[in-house]
Amino acid sequence: MNLPSNPRIAVIGTGAVGGYYGARLAEAGQDIHFLLRSDFEHVAEYGLTIRSIDGDLHLPRPAIHSSTASIGLCDVVLIALKSTVNDALLDLLPPLLKPGTLLVTLQNGLGNEDFLAHHFSAHADSILGGLCFVCINRVAPGVIHHIAQGLITLGEHAGPALPRTHQLAAALAAAGIPCSVDGSLARSRWKKLVWNIPFNGLSIAAGGLDTAAILADPALAELVRELMQEIIATAQHLGHDLPATLADDMIARTRTMTQYKPSSLIDFLAGHEVEIDAIWAEPCRRARAAGHPMLRVETLLQLLRSRLHQRELGVR
Amino acid sequence: MNLPSNPRIAVIGTGAVGGYYGARLAEAGQDIHFLLRSDFEHVAEYGLTIRSIDGDLHLPRPAIHSSTASIGLCDVVLIALKSTVNDALLDLLPPLLKPGTLLVTLQNGLGNEDFLAHHFSAHADSILGGLCFVCINRVAPGVIHHIAQGLITLGEHAGPALPRTHQLAAALAAAGIPCSVDGSLARSRWKKLVWNIPFNGLSIAAGGLDTAAILADPALAELVRELMQEIIATAQHLGHDLPATLADDMIARTRTMTQYKPSSLIDFLAGHEVEIDAIWAEPCRRARAAGHPMLRVETLLQLLRSRLHQRELGVR
Repeated sequence: MNLPSNPRIAVIGTGAVGGYYGARLAEAGQDIHFLLRSDFEHVAEYGLTIRSIDGDLHLPRPAIHSSTASIGLCDVVLIALKSTVNDALLDLLPPLLKPGTLLVTLQNGLGNEDFLAHHFSAHADSILGGLCFVCINRVAPGVIHHIAQGLITLGEHAGPALPRTHQLAAALAAAGIPCSVDGSLARSRWKKLVWNIPFNGLSIAAGGLDTAAILADPALAELVRELMQEIIATAQHLGHDLPATLADDMIARTRTMTQYKPSSLIDFLAGHEVEIDAIWAEPCRRARAAGHPMLRVETLLQLLRSRLHQRELGVR
Repeated sequence: MNLPSNPRIAVIGTGAVGGYYGARLAEAGQDIHFLLRSDFEHVAEYGLTIRSIDGDLHLPRPAIHSSTASIGLCDVVLIALKSTVNDALLDLLPPLLKPGTLLVTLQNGLGNEDFLAHHFSAHADSILGGLCFVCINRVAPGVIHHIAQGLITLGEHAGPALPRTHQLAAALAAAGIPCSVDGSLARSRWKKLVWNIPFNGLSIAAGGLDTAAILADPALAELVRELMQEIIATAQHLGHDLPATLADDMIARTRTMTQYKPSSLIDFLAGHEVEIDAIWAEPCRRARAAGHPMLRVETLLQLLRSRLHQRELGVR
């Protein structure tokens, strides 16, 4: 089944990722409908503002909704909620779905496509993952700061890429969003974890450090490399052919970014939930289930859980 | 060679450990000579004060010295300096040594006996380790707080226990210090690391937590157990028969202690050096050299190094 020429697209969760990509698509003339909760009133009054290295952009009157019933049936659903509130999707998605709707999760970590497949099996052949390689922060209600990169890598949850996936990629590319379509979503997810697990993890566990501070600390820079190599080895054990040079390449590229605060650190400092399960716990479970446990990552995971526990004690 | 009936004993480093055990021995009538540096003037005026669960004690005029030349030849040298300043022993020890002098290191971690054997090989057959199982803090100049436990386990650096080792144990026991003589010092050292590596390490790496706070945090309590099991497995691989129940036993015993700040945390918070090499780095090196790396401990070690690095940045 092909996408219609002017697909109706819902953006579920208008935070940094949903807001940025949705705004780019809307600016390019796509029929974008944003679901908002806490920022609804603010965006209704002031619109959506993107400050971007690729050019600023302001949508004075985006199509915003406070419920998915108000959005109605869509051809594409871009899911950009935090994975920690995936249960909310059980109520949010049904009003949007019709035969052939593409469910595209732009969320981090492992397990999100499986969650969608498990609960929306009638649409299981329409589930995609989109990995966002982007440095992006929501800095105020309705205001998003796009700092670096921007690539989305699309892939099917099961099987090779279908024509509609390429059609969606074309729509993204036409909106100025670099996009690739990968034959193995699972491999791409693991590849992204090679970055997210150490940098998002250490930014919190080492006491609130951005990427530049992590790499300026000799012990942490070494630990980043050790964690990356452990994840790469497990991914290879699971059958994903990540290159041996990946760790060095990622570290070198990260050195060119300046003082980026990983999204997990921003969430942590703001007192929000952190995507512990998708980014750290689920990969550890899968590694252990495959007989190839990631002991360094497991250690980092426990320290992260402790940080969250201590943060709660501090709040009380 | 036997110890004389009234041996001349030097205490090198009159911090918590040297001050406490030296004071107990002096109170019992032993010929104890303390080397002091920063606290010399204070102790000369006010004496040495021990506040102890086993009974307080005050030495108004202990035999104190500001150099080992002033102490002169001894039968026993109790070394209680921080292992981070072991190089100072190269100058400090020679004035004390004669044929048959017992060198007894009461320091933490691995490598201290080897250091002594390497540099004082003429006395290599007289090197002992003493493991101190004690909760003890120096709370002010010349004031030491003995909080819990107190056992010293003595052992030869090389070979089985000799008669003089049992004679030293008898002198300690006569001073009210519980003492055991162990046939394998290396095994005892590893056993002590099973406690020190996780508790001293996490007290710093997790952001300044005492033992009670660590065990009240579910993720850290689990990580303590995982670290302990990793260390036990490596010790077993090295030929030391530590029991499988050791981790649970140690955790249960630690729960009976209240809010103990490990010495490494006290050092860290005071801006002092932390015994990174003896407690974490050297065990990791030995495990790796034996083909049985401790990946969780290595991860903890990197986070500790980072904490020290970040502390220095904060001081600048």
